[in-house]
Amino acid sequence: MRDVSIIGIGQIEVGEHWGKSLRHLAGEAVLAAMRDASLEKADALYVGNMLSGELNGQGHLGALIADFVGLRGIEAVKIEAACGSGAAAVRMAYLAVASGLLDVVIAAGVEKMTDQATDVTTAALATAADAEYEVVHGTSFVSLNALLMQRYMYEYGVKHEDFAGFPITAHKNAANNPYAMFQKAISLETFKRAKIIASPINLMESSPIGDGAAAVILAPSDVARAFQPAAVRIAGSAIVTDSLAIHDRHDPLFLEAAAQSARKAYHQADVGPEDIDFFELHDAFSITAALSLEAAGFAERGNGAYLARDGEIALDGRIPICTMGGLKARGHPVGATGVYQIVESVLQLRGQAGKNQVKNARIGLAQNIGGSGATVITHILTAEE
Amino acid sequence: MRDVSIIGIGQIEVGEHWGKSLRHLAGEAVLAAMRDASLEKADALYVGNMLSGELNGQGHLGALIADFVGLRGIEAVKIEAACGSGAAAVRMAYLAVASGLLDVVIAAGVEKMTDQATDVTTAALATAADAEYEVVHGTSFVSLNALLMQRYMYEYGVKHEDFAGFPITAHKNAANNPYAMFQKAISLETFKRAKIIASPINLMESSPIGDGAAAVILAPSDVARAFQPAAVRIAGSAIVTDSLAIHDRHDPLFLEAAAQSARKAYHQADVGPEDIDFFELHDAFSITAALSLEAAGFAERGNGAYLARDGEIALDGRIPICTMGGLKARGHPVGATGVYQIVESVLQLRGQAGKNQVKNARIGLAQNIGGSGATVITHILTAEE
Repeated sequence: MRDVSIIGIGQIEVGEHWGKSLRHLAGEAVLAAMRDASLEKADALYVGNMLSGELNGQGHLGALIADFVGLRGIEAVKIEAACGSGAAAVRMAYLAVASGLLDVVIAAGVEKMTDQATDVTTAALATAADAEYEVVHGTSFVSLNALLMQRYMYEYGVKHEDFAGFPITAHKNAANNPYAMFQKAISLETFKRAKIIASPINLMESSPIGDGAAAVILAPSDVARAFQPAAVRIAGSAIVTDSLAIHDRHDPLFLEAAAQSARKAYHQADVGPEDIDFFELHDAFSITAALSLEAAGFAERGNGAYLARDGEIALDGRIPICTMGGLKARGHPVGATGVYQIVESVLQLRGQAGKNQVKNARIGLAQNIGGSGATVITHILTAEE
Repeated sequence: MRDVSIIGIGQIEVGEHWGKSLRHLAGEAVLAAMRDASLEKADALYVGNMLSGELNGQGHLGALIADFVGLRGIEAVKIEAACGSGAAAVRMAYLAVASGLLDVVIAAGVEKMTDQATDVTTAALATAADAEYEVVHGTSFVSLNALLMQRYMYEYGVKHEDFAGFPITAHKNAANNPYAMFQKAISLETFKRAKIIASPINLMESSPIGDGAAAVILAPSDVARAFQPAAVRIAGSAIVTDSLAIHDRHDPLFLEAAAQSARKAYHQADVGPEDIDFFELHDAFSITAALSLEAAGFAERGNGAYLARDGEIALDGRIPICTMGGLKARGHPVGATGVYQIVESVLQLRGQAGKNQVKNARIGLAQNIGGSGATVITHILTAEE
């Protein structure tokens, strides 16, 4: 295999883009990444997307978007792994470049979720769960996570307020991110007064529905520097899966796939949690953030939320997370999220994160989760010397 | 890159599987392939599927099926490229093994299309076309192909009856395929009396809606022989795209992506059309078969249908096609079709095609098409000495 680096990044502001269609959203992100890399062509485009068939009446996004950005003819497919689709597309691009068969591969993520009524979108999101053993009982995606959170608080005696630091930190970081859906801080009072969505999960700890797109361009590391002086190397990449249905897992409160996925990526990159300068984690809900911190080796079981309570996840804390706002405040256009995480990691490693720059950031961890932990994609990115 | 071979194949009968869910269909095919390869584990599973979200309320098939077949934890994603999803999954598996990062990768294709009313399925299939420039006008997938066929007959003076050889040959071959949906021959009279679906396309030249699943297992060629004495090498692999909308193409009657995709695969395998012993082509409609033969270099433009009329596509003809029944008679469970084509090619190259064995078959061509030619995946397979 060849080493692989990221030579271009692009993203658009997450929001309600009623005036733009799917191809426009994805196209803007891809073209931004191509400008960033000073590239006018590529060998392939892999598109991460979860719901275009259900919500936009449009499949076949690979060819559609390749054509729209002026790359008609190149290899193009869509990759789906529920909310992990974005990083899964990056993983496929990584394998393609590593193989030596393709040199320049674009991985894009796009989702347009605000065209439909909320109940339609909620039902579509539930396709990430097990249709025959979970959804058939009337569960939605938030209700499944509410069950996990309830059990977590019961098992470990964690108070609901202990989770407040996750959305508060996310919103604080998003205030400085021009691509974030919610560019404003929230207070502890706002968190405490927020209405309940599915007990105990409240509105302020649920990631929002939004439209967005992001893209990264991968190339062999040995030529990457010619394209982009600040190329960032993909030092570790792994996808690990678990059962879709939470009740089928040996231990519902431990994200086994997240732990194994992180372990594989650490092993490949020859680093450990102690070497990570920041962690772009998948805070779809505050409980997901806590479980992710535990699975990736940053907290003992039952202690994940305390990292938020104690300020350790802040930009100057022990392990900064969601440095540009995370799913909660940057937004969570599901199939695009994993690519946003990689784009933001590259900004940190290039020293281009502005007011949110993590000091001396050299090694970043990005972890994207599909379903309630059934597909977990981990990437470790390093700044090239 | 490493050379890659196919060490296991599995398939189920295409039909109306109302008593089995998506995971059962895919699971049976994957487990059959694992038995064929005498394997009990794998590194990854890539699932080709187009419509599970729209028709079965289930996304996230990678993790779902990996878990169901006893491979919980392995890397798994879904690949979508409309009706080309199956071969696109094989392509991704090929790149993964070629990279050296993964050793044993399963590519499966599955589609369950008969659970919904036909109008729902027809609308879902139309997501392969351009939602904003084609489908918005009320076109369905068959009507788009009918426009192509109408124009083709007008431009080249080809008679409708000249196409009859495609379904007649397909059904004849399917009669000996226990996995085919229609295991019976049809006559010219049946073709002529068939009712019109979208003029000039009639029922007997349209591939049917059905449920099915198929799987292949890929491994590095240098170890493949240890698993499977009759391993078949992937000598060429290519995906090429085009505009989704037919009206955006320079020449609607030439499948440019099919031609370029074949050209790339020929180049990689260092062979040409004259070396091909059989061609598993994408006969979604008889017009598609004619255009495919022309694009892949087996007929001059406007002459594709004459190969059917003159018997050149028969098992003992110049270029046997759809040797186990093709999309028309084996069936066309869309996301699985491309994998069925590869499975059937392997049967031919192993000399296991029974009554349909093409004599001295050493080099096979398989071409899977997404949309009306917008994504075309070509594989060239060779029998190992």
